[in-house]
Amino acid sequence: MEEAQASILENMAPMPREMAPIESCLNRVLAAPLLADRDLPPFNRSTFDGFAIASREAANGRRAFSIEATAFSGDAELELQSSNACIEIMTGAPVPKGADCVIKIEDTDTHGAVARLKDSVIPKPGLGIHPQGSDAQAKQELLAPGCRMTAKEMAIAASIGKSELLVAKDPRISIVTTGDELVDIAANPLPHQIRRSNDLSLSLALRSAGYQQVERYHLADDPEETEAFVADALSKFDILILAGGVSKGKRDFLPKALESAGVHKAFQWVSQRPGKPLWFGASEASPLRPRVFALPGNPVSCFTCLHRYVIPALNLSSGLVREYVSKALLDEPFRFAPPLTLFLPATLSIDNTARSWATPLPFNTSGDFVSVAGTDGFLELPASQTEFEKGTAFPFHPWNV
Amino acid sequence: MEEAQASILENMAPMPREMAPIESCLNRVLAAPLLADRDLPPFNRSTFDGFAIASREAANGRRAFSIEATAFSGDAELELQSSNACIEIMTGAPVPKGADCVIKIEDTDTHGAVARLKDSVIPKPGLGIHPQGSDAQAKQELLAPGCRMTAKEMAIAASIGKSELLVAKDPRISIVTTGDELVDIAANPLPHQIRRSNDLSLSLALRSAGYQQVERYHLADDPEETEAFVADALSKFDILILAGGVSKGKRDFLPKALESAGVHKAFQWVSQRPGKPLWFGASEASPLRPRVFALPGNPVSCFTCLHRYVIPALNLSSGLVREYVSKALLDEPFRFAPPLTLFLPATLSIDNTARSWATPLPFNTSGDFVSVAGTDGFLELPASQTEFEKGTAFPFHPWNV
Repeated sequence: MEEAQASILENMAPMPREMAPIESCLNRVLAAPLLADRDLPPFNRSTFDGFAIASREAANGRRAFSIEATAFSGDAELELQSSNACIEIMTGAPVPKGADCVIKIEDTDTHGAVARLKDSVIPKPGLGIHPQGSDAQAKQELLAPGCRMTAKEMAIAASIGKSELLVAKDPRISIVTTGDELVDIAANPLPHQIRRSNDLSLSLALRSAGYQQVERYHLADDPEETEAFVADALSKFDILILAGGVSKGKRDFLPKALESAGVHKAFQWVSQRPGKPLWFGASEASPLRPRVFALPGNPVSCFTCLHRYVIPALNLSSGLVREYVSKALLDEPFRFAPPLTLFLPATLSIDNTARSWATPLPFNTSGDFVSVAGTDGFLELPASQTEFEKGTAFPFHPWNV
Repeated sequence: MEEAQASILENMAPMPREMAPIESCLNRVLAAPLLADRDLPPFNRSTFDGFAIASREAANGRRAFSIEATAFSGDAELELQSSNACIEIMTGAPVPKGADCVIKIEDTDTHGAVARLKDSVIPKPGLGIHPQGSDAQAKQELLAPGCRMTAKEMAIAASIGKSELLVAKDPRISIVTTGDELVDIAANPLPHQIRRSNDLSLSLALRSAGYQQVERYHLADDPEETEAFVADALSKFDILILAGGVSKGKRDFLPKALESAGVHKAFQWVSQRPGKPLWFGASEASPLRPRVFALPGNPVSCFTCLHRYVIPALNLSSGLVREYVSKALLDEPFRFAPPLTLFLPATLSIDNTARSWATPLPFNTSGDFVSVAGTDGFLELPASQTEFEKGTAFPFHPWNV
């Protein structure tokens, strides 16, 4: 399993970078640092509705200040004309030149054009002011390349005027299902037919992980159609994800079609359950240098391999700074003798001491999604062990990344 | 804070339900149970490429079986004509009538039209078969109402032929920013102006939480425009989220405009930091009975209130079965004296015993996103305490829900 992972990571080329409108960048990976275009905040900003004064006047005993003007947010900076006076100010407005603190409206009494400080108030320089440049100085790096642009990073980009961002290209991904037994969702299947679902679950999981450019195809079990499709797809997509058709069956035409099309096999067969037939290769001949993941057709195997291998590979290729792998404690003893890494779907809970516990699915659960639906992700139990004790921590991979 | 939360939850009406094409249902909340349309799997399915035999023949000593036919996936069920014989079978194909186990191709040697079992193989009934109805019986409930339709739940819906799903309506949400100091992302701001970012961060956080129907408006600080906009918006949207304009400033026109438009204020001012000015109300007069959340304009207050109040309220209204609140251990001692609930942005890490630790931002960090960008969510420290010890568990709300 470690070899398979290393081989994939070695073979993934960095995605090219592209400028994209900010609106389309949610969850994409930033490819250049974002620098502050000016001081943040750009001026001394009032944090209260109240009155801006010179604090030394209060220190000298003054409690009543005549109101000279009102500073609204959106107005240019005013200037305090007399140090005996004050300027009424709104939250977010620039603090007037000559004033060095803002007294909250609740801490004053106003009579006509005079604001009087309540007895309890002790004005100090800086009170009620969010100082210019205190969040960031002009040119300071706000976000480093490799960060994922979630909602809050997008707010930072907006605040410095980036209506376009340099991000890793969103790879064009083709998801290919195979198998004559598979029919459309809307079809009324014969008893020996099954509705196709891998293409939907894979494309939606990719979308949730931030990859939007996903197209889906279904191939009949036919060697010519398979060869023609593969040759064409290799010229159009950055990533091919094949679901099914790579095992040892008589109609598993994909390995041969991939080979004929010049895809170099990096490996097949991984000591893991589920997902043993996993195949990975790369085509250096095609201009897009596509990478090809061939996943087993079993729905849970397929979904597990996507989360354990494909999404991390796409993230790496996009330049995402490595996310930490979560951990959870096994909450019942477990035995698994074969020398295979075991990916075990499990439900997560958190106890009062903030420890995460994983309750595995009963072991002989099939490859169907019905039982997996209630789980939160999968534990990774190493091939080197046979007995797994209750309360031991293992890597835990959530289904929603 | 508990009162505010209770008031919101009391006032949220259940969203109507609607049929939606499956492709548009990612992350939406299921509103009716999904039942198996037939047994799953619908037939005895071979889990190997190999040979289907009658195991009693092997129990009686037979090791060589003549090959009668080949069963491909996608073909109708075959029948074993002679119990001395076998049928070659592909993974996923129906196990022939008369056969009760499948021997892996690797466990056989084939000479001409005869497959011979390797010495190590002990055929048993059920071997290599995923039995009809073992995942679910026809009519069995596969998914209960209230579950969120992530990729794996969508696979289940596809497998039972649901090209449309009954889900909670995706509420029409209007995000309204106010403040004359705010300019567009693309604008070149004057020194006293700031680029607008709350509308982007709120709409993208809502999108990530599964709410797609979000429109954005910016209002000038003008009482007539504000009143006209509010009256119109109440007739068009299910949810209004106002950012800014609800504090005590002279140009905070929203409370009055909401009142004039017949919005009943449920509460304003909450004993919390940040987010004290939070305002919530409901309009029973408008046909859509919209709910109105008025959040403070400060970006971090605004974002925190969205995650702590608005998204949970939308989830409740959509019928989502309550998600558990995560917990994390405070990783440094902390003091906070005011009688306010404190929402403290923090970075999460997980130790080798699967405990989650939260490292809070330095306390005097301003309301700007610059420092919050690196955090994973916020701790909730109760108002009743002043000293918070290192190693104590508190509720932790992740930014990405």
